[in-house]
Amino acid sequence: MGNTYTKLEQEFLEYYKQIESYAEAIKLIAWDLRTKIPKKGVKRRSETLSLFSQKVHELTTSDQMKTYIDQLRDSSNPVIRRSVELVEKEYNQSKKIPVEEYKEYVELTSQAESVWTEAREKSDFELFRPYLEKIVAFNIRFAEYWGYKEDRYDALLDNFEPGVTVKTLDQVFPKLRDDLSKLIQKVNDSSDKPNPEPILTYFPKENQEQFALKVLENMGYDFEAGRLDETVHPFAINVNHDDVRVTTRYDENDFRMAVFGTVHEGGHALYEQGLDKDLYDTPVCSAISMGIHESQSLFWENFVGRNETFWDQYYNLFLEYAPDSFKDIPKAEFYRAINEVKPSFIRIEADEMTYPLHIMIRYELEKDLINEKIEVKDLPKLWNDKMEDYLGIRPENDADGVLQDIHWSGGDFGYFPSYALGYMYGAQIRSALDQSVNIDQSIRNDDLSPIKKWLNENIHQKGSMKEPLDLLKEVTGEGLNPDHLVNYLEDKYQKIYNW
Amino acid sequence: MGNTYTKLEQEFLEYYKQIESYAEAIKLIAWDLRTKIPKKGVKRRSETLSLFSQKVHELTTSDQMKTYIDQLRDSSNPVIRRSVELVEKEYNQSKKIPVEEYKEYVELTSQAESVWTEAREKSDFELFRPYLEKIVAFNIRFAEYWGYKEDRYDALLDNFEPGVTVKTLDQVFPKLRDDLSKLIQKVNDSSDKPNPEPILTYFPKENQEQFALKVLENMGYDFEAGRLDETVHPFAINVNHDDVRVTTRYDENDFRMAVFGTVHEGGHALYEQGLDKDLYDTPVCSAISMGIHESQSLFWENFVGRNETFWDQYYNLFLEYAPDSFKDIPKAEFYRAINEVKPSFIRIEADEMTYPLHIMIRYELEKDLINEKIEVKDLPKLWNDKMEDYLGIRPENDADGVLQDIHWSGGDFGYFPSYALGYMYGAQIRSALDQSVNIDQSIRNDDLSPIKKWLNENIHQKGSMKEPLDLLKEVTGEGLNPDHLVNYLEDKYQKIYNW
Repeated sequence: MGNTYTKLEQEFLEYYKQIESYAEAIKLIAWDLRTKIPKKGVKRRSETLSLFSQKVHELTTSDQMKTYIDQLRDSSNPVIRRSVELVEKEYNQSKKIPVEEYKEYVELTSQAESVWTEAREKSDFELFRPYLEKIVAFNIRFAEYWGYKEDRYDALLDNFEPGVTVKTLDQVFPKLRDDLSKLIQKVNDSSDKPNPEPILTYFPKENQEQFALKVLENMGYDFEAGRLDETVHPFAINVNHDDVRVTTRYDENDFRMAVFGTVHEGGHALYEQGLDKDLYDTPVCSAISMGIHESQSLFWENFVGRNETFWDQYYNLFLEYAPDSFKDIPKAEFYRAINEVKPSFIRIEADEMTYPLHIMIRYELEKDLINEKIEVKDLPKLWNDKMEDYLGIRPENDADGVLQDIHWSGGDFGYFPSYALGYMYGAQIRSALDQSVNIDQSIRNDDLSPIKKWLNENIHQKGSMKEPLDLLKEVTGEGLNPDHLVNYLEDKYQKIYNW
Repeated sequence: MGNTYTKLEQEFLEYYKQIESYAEAIKLIAWDLRTKIPKKGVKRRSETLSLFSQKVHELTTSDQMKTYIDQLRDSSNPVIRRSVELVEKEYNQSKKIPVEEYKEYVELTSQAESVWTEAREKSDFELFRPYLEKIVAFNIRFAEYWGYKEDRYDALLDNFEPGVTVKTLDQVFPKLRDDLSKLIQKVNDSSDKPNPEPILTYFPKENQEQFALKVLENMGYDFEAGRLDETVHPFAINVNHDDVRVTTRYDENDFRMAVFGTVHEGGHALYEQGLDKDLYDTPVCSAISMGIHESQSLFWENFVGRNETFWDQYYNLFLEYAPDSFKDIPKAEFYRAINEVKPSFIRIEADEMTYPLHIMIRYELEKDLINEKIEVKDLPKLWNDKMEDYLGIRPENDADGVLQDIHWSGGDFGYFPSYALGYMYGAQIRSALDQSVNIDQSIRNDDLSPIKKWLNENIHQKGSMKEPLDLLKEVTGEGLNPDHLVNYLEDKYQKIYNW
């Protein structure tokens, strides 16, 4: 990759670096808001955040930026050409929305988030409905401004998963749904189910943290370029490329929350820590898409962290931190317990087999909303019907149903599919990786570094040079293929549930 | 105070608010750099810091700012008039230095800090000398650009303590020095000295922290508008006016570091938390000077925290956190031990009686350097001579002498006198406060709030509406008068040393 730039290219990168600096401050503020800030400090800080977002917007949509785009579109340097593509997309997306309309939308969504919080607390969809109606209407208009070839929803999907369309999803989701339903049926029919009761016992936070830190360290997370803190809604954040922080939350009666949560966020962090240093401060030095990002976190959480060999290797270490009562749980029973499959209402608490169904429900509803085939007022019933249809359970209130996720309050339509895509990408990547690096053997060797190295070289270092489906093809030799996920689940769970 | 602004005044305040926002980000970054950041993240963060400092500089020295200054200089609103005075001073100070010269100076001082760090580690002044020579030369030029009436050093003093001049200092320092020397002589001659040995014992960090938090809480520090973290060089910082953080460091073999350090920084924080909410986001909503700030931290650290009545009241609570061995130390002996007076090399570890002498040494050397009466190359010897003369001890190396403080490496000439001024201000304020609020009685009532309230009303709420000596006059009824400090020390230490 070319690292020598012309004078103009250097100027462009210097200009872009300012955007990165504002973004760095925004991310530090975001991290602080969610981990450290005393509550009275929030009000003034939000004003600073808003000034900096405005500065990013100004720099992204300036005439100067347009000049760089026009002058560098045909650069001989592939990094610059791709960088220009990426900033041009941002430029166009922003420019197509009238300034006043965008302002109104920003105000609406910032109010909507607190209304949603209240509505969820009261489990009262009607409170949130008028806001959601407006947000949907805005997103429909935005989709029209941005344009699309086949389906209006494509315009929104493209913000999170460039190149992925309704057509792509509709080619895989129905079959995935059928396959998962069959597997879940087998699970339900099993007469030899795991029992999670013994592991749901008091486990002091400090000990959970110490074990989680050990695992993070073994994954190859660089603590000189990151840190672990506590928060309410866990996340990983690249404050800058050499300061990638992870956060977690602790439930002292269910260690799975912090342990698997930390491994999940650690997977995101390894991606950010693994970006190519030669690309620092260029637009291509970023994760390629939400889906590819999620493929990395789910890879570590599920394919490593919930793997049987992993616990063969780590159970003794785990017992050093766990309360004494765990010593009475045979390793095999422990492994089955952490992999219990059970349809439940809340997406973020779902097991790995039912999880994609939660996503499909959201995808179908979003797609129909944006295409004006359904109305916001009917969402609670439609949601519950689909839950019953897909998972066999019906939420008794909106908090456990349509109100559970924050995404829509922020206007993030098109985001949810990335979670399921990430899971399928991850399973495909797992198959490819396992051919060069034997995952179980690496774990048994007590050396996870070959896994990390493969992911670094094949995914992380490439930044945003390619679009997600092109990268997937390059890395796995094929397009999106849900069979890898289904096969993984079938292999794993037939042993756990003895069918 | 007027809180209704004309349209133009509002515009000016909106403009100024941007500077505050950048300053807020700079302070959050500074806090994070000194408490949380992983080491590899520092490099890129410094570039962001430098961009934001440049933005502050641009906004402070813009033509737009000049227009506001000219249009609002004669505002009928006293808050605006004073605000304009303050921003105009900044504007002029910055404008008078040629841009290129200032850039060179910023680079020099940023290099000088790491050179100083190395020089101190190696105790080798010669390493640092060439940098210090340049820094002094710059400061001489700056003083000439800025101008002064009587002494060139006045131009530098004015940056930290507006209105205070060499003349002011030379009227008080010689007598203060003589008085302190006499007291120190009595201490040295005493045959009944305190013994600090028993208190210098292992005291777990967590317990020190818990006790320190209790004291902070009782001082009235608002934890909803602040937090306590660990750091290497403790500080308090107003990230914004509702987010004023304190930091401390722990020595597990000397609890005094963390306990008195936290109370000291807590005193700074009460000042920042006590600013008038009606003045938020105006230039007058800031501490009046370094000296007045220090008067607040020293007030709490010494006049409250090292006070005999305080320990009468708090010793039982302290023993709940302290190791068992403290139970064998009678309260009276404990109190004497925490107030041991002993000439020592390092300023920041000095006791309250010898501390001002450390400052006078620095003041005299700075003044002579800036007036070109002495040369940088002669500093180590001159320093040691003065130490011997004032404190009766001679450093054996530069690390314990001329290289101990970071200030000169950053070009902060004129800063040191604020420490001694703050101490004298503090003692004067103590006398005034004690007449309306009996300090000892408040402590005995287990209610420090009358003390905080008095300081809030008489000092904190006034922000920067007045200059330090005018405020002092208003609050204490007299000009700078070192007798209050000397009398305080004499009263206190004649009991401790039984002379």
